[in-house]
Amino acid sequence: MAGALKIGIAGLGTVGSSLARIITGRANELSVTCGRAIEITAVSARDRSRDRGIDLSGMAWFESAEEMAARADIDVLVELIGGAEGPAERAVRAALDRGLHVVTANKALLARHGVELAALAEKKGVLLNFEAAVAGGIPVIKALRESLTGNRISRVYGIMNGTCNYILTRMEKEGLSFQDCLTEAQRLGYAEADPTFDIEGNDTAHKLAILTTLAFGTQIAADEIYLEGISNISIEDIEAAADLGYRIKLLGVAQQTDSGIEQRVHPTMVPRDSVIAQVDGVTNAVAIESDILGELLMVGPGAGGDATASAVLGDIADIAKSRPGEQRVPVLGTPAEALEPYRRARMRSHEGGYFIRLTVADRTGVFASVATRMAENSISLESIVQRASSTAPATEAKTIILVTHATTEASVRNAVTAIKAEDYLVGEPQVIRIERPKAF
Amino acid sequence: MAGALKIGIAGLGTVGSSLARIITGRANELSVTCGRAIEITAVSARDRSRDRGIDLSGMAWFESAEEMAARADIDVLVELIGGAEGPAERAVRAALDRGLHVVTANKALLARHGVELAALAEKKGVLLNFEAAVAGGIPVIKALRESLTGNRISRVYGIMNGTCNYILTRMEKEGLSFQDCLTEAQRLGYAEADPTFDIEGNDTAHKLAILTTLAFGTQIAADEIYLEGISNISIEDIEAAADLGYRIKLLGVAQQTDSGIEQRVHPTMVPRDSVIAQVDGVTNAVAIESDILGELLMVGPGAGGDATASAVLGDIADIAKSRPGEQRVPVLGTPAEALEPYRRARMRSHEGGYFIRLTVADRTGVFASVATRMAENSISLESIVQRASSTAPATEAKTIILVTHATTEASVRNAVTAIKAEDYLVGEPQVIRIERPKAF
Repeated sequence: MAGALKIGIAGLGTVGSSLARIITGRANELSVTCGRAIEITAVSARDRSRDRGIDLSGMAWFESAEEMAARADIDVLVELIGGAEGPAERAVRAALDRGLHVVTANKALLARHGVELAALAEKKGVLLNFEAAVAGGIPVIKALRESLTGNRISRVYGIMNGTCNYILTRMEKEGLSFQDCLTEAQRLGYAEADPTFDIEGNDTAHKLAILTTLAFGTQIAADEIYLEGISNISIEDIEAAADLGYRIKLLGVAQQTDSGIEQRVHPTMVPRDSVIAQVDGVTNAVAIESDILGELLMVGPGAGGDATASAVLGDIADIAKSRPGEQRVPVLGTPAEALEPYRRARMRSHEGGYFIRLTVADRTGVFASVATRMAENSISLESIVQRASSTAPATEAKTIILVTHATTEASVRNAVTAIKAEDYLVGEPQVIRIERPKAF
Repeated sequence: MAGALKIGIAGLGTVGSSLARIITGRANELSVTCGRAIEITAVSARDRSRDRGIDLSGMAWFESAEEMAARADIDVLVELIGGAEGPAERAVRAALDRGLHVVTANKALLARHGVELAALAEKKGVLLNFEAAVAGGIPVIKALRESLTGNRISRVYGIMNGTCNYILTRMEKEGLSFQDCLTEAQRLGYAEADPTFDIEGNDTAHKLAILTTLAFGTQIAADEIYLEGISNISIEDIEAAADLGYRIKLLGVAQQTDSGIEQRVHPTMVPRDSVIAQVDGVTNAVAIESDILGELLMVGPGAGGDATASAVLGDIADIAKSRPGEQRVPVLGTPAEALEPYRRARMRSHEGGYFIRLTVADRTGVFASVATRMAENSISLESIVQRASSTAPATEAKTIILVTHATTEASVRNAVTAIKAEDYLVGEPQVIRIERPKAF
């Protein structure tokens, strides 16, 4: 049996503490499975005195993660600090510079510096593993980086933010407003005090940027993602979706098109009888569509100390099982130097179905005018329904709900602009894109 | 860049031909991703003259797979012949004996000889990969063998036979009989001329035996699986399931219990709003429940030349990316010599909910008698419904449908035996087990 794999954990929050407990508590099982022992020889965190339920006595203590990465007697740095810059970034760079393997759960760091760090790891012949950075415990990085080798991927999409999915699920099941569900999510610890990063889609965007690179072999382009959050989704939208056979999810979608790659995060209507539509609450799901394998969907916990620690441990085990020396697993699926420049498809060119909800004055001719504006923009309609508005007195306003056949974003925007120029619109129109899974 | 990885493909049927086309057609992409070229240097099949759309000119041709395994200039034997014994087994043994890596899609071979072959591979320090053997393109072997390292698994279950799922789905959606759906499946190529192996659950059992070993670290025990096929599932069962909020799937289930491990394959009622219940047609799905990660569900194509070839290619890529020399990835998750003996939990001890459908004579007192027999066996009922039978004239027979709370198989069998001893039963009682996903 080879010598023990020595790891240093930077950051002893929920995930780090869970990981330390598992590694020390399951030492025998891990050494049998990995063919060598895994030992935590160093840790770093801000406060040494806090009780985390771990015996730190056999581990070197560092106040600075960077210091630990640079000097500790370790083979692997496990970075669980978080943040795109600062101590996390410095520690990871220091470890790679020194030729250590790195395991990280830091999506922000990878979304910002992933290509550069991958190049550094590949130059040094070490592994940089990050299964926990996307969709928590779901092994989607491994699927893309290893299982799907040789496949050409056409689309990857998923529910990657538990906070949003929890809120949308409760709104649907209990008929509560967005605000009420957000408050409840905050009370239960599913949402931060400042929930902006989750509910406006930024968190999903970081994860999507990483998946895009793995799926399409292009450089990470986290700043080029079309972003729309869930804060303006109303009960009316959810009910109308249900009536039409859809459910609303916040999806991150990356898709190869003729004019480049689309990366978009937005509330999305998915067919109610599709498998992904059943994914409720804080659960995550990622689907990958490729030309040889077909469609693959993975569903599981997207967050939580233990689930995330499980993914980190899988990454550590891969390092323990690998032979020392030059590594041939490209960090981002494709070797960093072979990644192609990201070519962004314009959002206006996006093709798909759309749900459009308009609140309009209850006047003769309005319905005909709306239909005409659609036709003028070559938008073919799957359905158009007019009904009493639930948010305005019935005598004053009606709701018109349209579902389009496949059309372009540009056509929809033009049609909506034309409708806004009329005098019958009450409030802002709601536009929600429809996404259809290929196989199930 | 390291030298090319030389592979020999034994068996050029649908999967083998698809694999050969992909490897030759995507040579550049594969060499970039894998850090070295992948070359097919040898093939073996029965008939050289058949046109498979592959240029065989640069490949050595062998009529015998064993001969190729023993002599060809290859690093990896890819075995796609199938069958637990005969040429497939001989070729795999010859390759491992010689110190070659092996990739196989052969579930029957592994279910019969897996432990022995794993021990041989580990002794020789080579990889034996078999992602395609279970659930086709779904990377469940990799998830169990690598991603879930350190987790204690409590249950693994899934829809692993596309033929059965196709038949059950069509029965439900179109109200057709089992026999009509089977005939249709045969016409479409989803079922064999002799469908016994699929519809009686043997195929699922082979796959389940492999998953059990990966999940629980026990020796393969394919002959100790409780087996019940779908041929006696009727439209009445499917309709009653729907009324009660369930769908019927053929599941393979392996579960850790206090008295050992349960391995069972049988028609199963799953809650209609669970994610796995949405998995229709030939699609497969595997769920893994573990203590750290929680629940993971993977859905994808379980068969088909391309999907299977994709899994085989992923296995080959893992070998291409690995360093030569001693391997530390245990073939069956746990090193073969460390696998524990399989301890079978008796089926009579199985605990769960049950659906029981009885056709009974339309007489006073029958309903009370059935309820009494249940109570005498300490079976608590979730629901009991009596209605007109759809298969017998209403005046002569009624249907009684019971759904039990968690009870034991022994109790249910005893109650059914007691009911059979009465004089009011018309035909055989139907008993279907209920399985509930833990999280979603």
